[in-house]
Amino acid sequence: MKVAIVGAGLMGTGIAWPLSDNNHEIRLVGTHLDKHIIKSCKEQNYHPRLKRFLPDRVTPYYVEEIEQALDGVDFLVSGVNSLGAHWIGKTISPYLLDGQKIIAVTKGLEASSEGELLILPDILYSELSKSIRDKVSLAAIGGPCIAGELAGRRQSCVVFASRDIETAKFLAKAFRTDYYHIWPSSDLLSLEVSVGMKNAYAMAVGMAQGALEKAGGVDEAGALMHNLAAAIFAQGCTEISRVLTAIGADPSFAYKLPGAGDLFVTSAGGRSVTLGKLLAKGHSYAEAQEIMKGETLEAVYIVQQMAQILSAKRTNTAINKGSIPLMEHLIEVITEGKSLDINLDAFF
Amino acid sequence: MKVAIVGAGLMGTGIAWPLSDNNHEIRLVGTHLDKHIIKSCKEQNYHPRLKRFLPDRVTPYYVEEIEQALDGVDFLVSGVNSLGAHWIGKTISPYLLDGQKIIAVTKGLEASSEGELLILPDILYSELSKSIRDKVSLAAIGGPCIAGELAGRRQSCVVFASRDIETAKFLAKAFRTDYYHIWPSSDLLSLEVSVGMKNAYAMAVGMAQGALEKAGGVDEAGALMHNLAAAIFAQGCTEISRVLTAIGADPSFAYKLPGAGDLFVTSAGGRSVTLGKLLAKGHSYAEAQEIMKGETLEAVYIVQQMAQILSAKRTNTAINKGSIPLMEHLIEVITEGKSLDINLDAFF
Repeated sequence: MKVAIVGAGLMGTGIAWPLSDNNHEIRLVGTHLDKHIIKSCKEQNYHPRLKRFLPDRVTPYYVEEIEQALDGVDFLVSGVNSLGAHWIGKTISPYLLDGQKIIAVTKGLEASSEGELLILPDILYSELSKSIRDKVSLAAIGGPCIAGELAGRRQSCVVFASRDIETAKFLAKAFRTDYYHIWPSSDLLSLEVSVGMKNAYAMAVGMAQGALEKAGGVDEAGALMHNLAAAIFAQGCTEISRVLTAIGADPSFAYKLPGAGDLFVTSAGGRSVTLGKLLAKGHSYAEAQEIMKGETLEAVYIVQQMAQILSAKRTNTAINKGSIPLMEHLIEVITEGKSLDINLDAFF
Repeated sequence: MKVAIVGAGLMGTGIAWPLSDNNHEIRLVGTHLDKHIIKSCKEQNYHPRLKRFLPDRVTPYYVEEIEQALDGVDFLVSGVNSLGAHWIGKTISPYLLDGQKIIAVTKGLEASSEGELLILPDILYSELSKSIRDKVSLAAIGGPCIAGELAGRRQSCVVFASRDIETAKFLAKAFRTDYYHIWPSSDLLSLEVSVGMKNAYAMAVGMAQGALEKAGGVDEAGALMHNLAAAIFAQGCTEISRVLTAIGADPSFAYKLPGAGDLFVTSAGGRSVTLGKLLAKGHSYAEAQEIMKGETLEAVYIVQQMAQILSAKRTNTAINKGSIPLMEHLIEVITEGKSLDINLDAFF
């Protein structure tokens, strides 16, 4: 089949490996932020962020060439991050055809202007023109999958969710390889909320590392702070389950691939963890932001969205004040500039 | 209050720190395996495995001095590991008094001779003399708590469970400090099964590290195998939830302190992880056992118990064949000598 991937960052490009191994023809379209990546791909067939040569059957395109890239494709992949959901909806809308399927590596949630909880596929949908939006099928990928490992053909397990289970199954068949294991699901809401929230909690798990450094590191008998990290991890899973319950979704996602699994891999390192470390070492959010200037901080984005959702007169959620105390404190730190001071006794 | 801890290993001794900080008088009784530890404690006030001097108010005793140590104590701590539950029941029984409370750091489950699933506090109970067993209250501790960190007064969060919630609350009050956070629970069954099973799944998470080494380590672009580790982690939580459901316990423990939390900290290192690495690098269980000779392998113990529970005509469980495929494969590897070959497609 012919596939277009829009967004040539780590995950957008990483997903090209299983597609290539399944003999699909892949058109990789960079966004306006990916110009240098597409240049390198066109000139040397090399992706500078993934640090790998592209697999077979991938043709790179600049965003200006998107019409040509999207022409006649069987399905599309949205490879942009959480902040790109509006842009990609607007951008691909003019080229979509009746019956096309769109699957997003983009995951997460957003607050509407009224503070309603919206999931990203619905944001993308809202940006499509009225004439096409109900004629295409949307899906999203969630679960523990570091792009560099997928591109290295390391064993990875994910969920493909779509409200239309046949769409999820169709896409799973197109992507599935002996290293990329896929479970189709019709529970798009539970998937998106779990994988969205996990970025904030990975930041919180990272705070244990920062607390350790602040306390002078390993002590004379070799004690680290794994106990604290694990308590924060469990609280993160618990809060995900509570939000899922409050919005009428499935709380068991909290201990599956998109919950505990995705939180585990995200807590192993990366920008969210780095930000958590900086905050726990005593930096204010403003200082940490300055240190990490230029990085896309999805953990911050999700905390900001949750702040709006929790403070609004909520129309579609019933998240009680005090029920997600870790998230509530992260909101104070990120949006109100308060000092980090996690109250473990408010947990569970 | 006066407290006796029986078992002077890592966790039995680690728990002395919060007790000491709460001004209790502590008698630390070594088992017959702890002779060298008690010798060092008596002569130098130093615990050689924890690599720390004992806190104030701790008096060490050899097992031969147990009668003196247990005389007049307000409550007891069982500090032995899973394999010591029978021994400690028999050993303390003659000295117990009406109304005493016993809390175990020992955690897990065991198969009865009929393959019934029993939790360790019930094993301990069964070894007490009939005249006293119903006059004492039993409790157990679960949750992510590395002993060396507790002894270093690092922040730790745990659950104290007893079928008698007042016992759990009484003990929580006796142990609670500003670094040792305790949630009382009456759900002893869910706690024990979660924390018991997690040892087997931590071994499985460790297999991702072994698989990485076997594959030649980090690849040219820096890819590890965190995706695989996270998938196994999520499957472990999922299987814990399924067993909890099958035995009529609470599946939500899978994403709380005794489930995801305890699995997270146990997966960070230790003997279970080391064993998983060896198996994934290609060693048979017999070879791995030889390499780790002399170590207490709680992961193996739990897999052996689960083998008996799953194969017996079960009287108190309804765990369906195929519902916990990772555990079933671990059973094949440990008890039948099969080669490790995890089928990820059987997951979830």
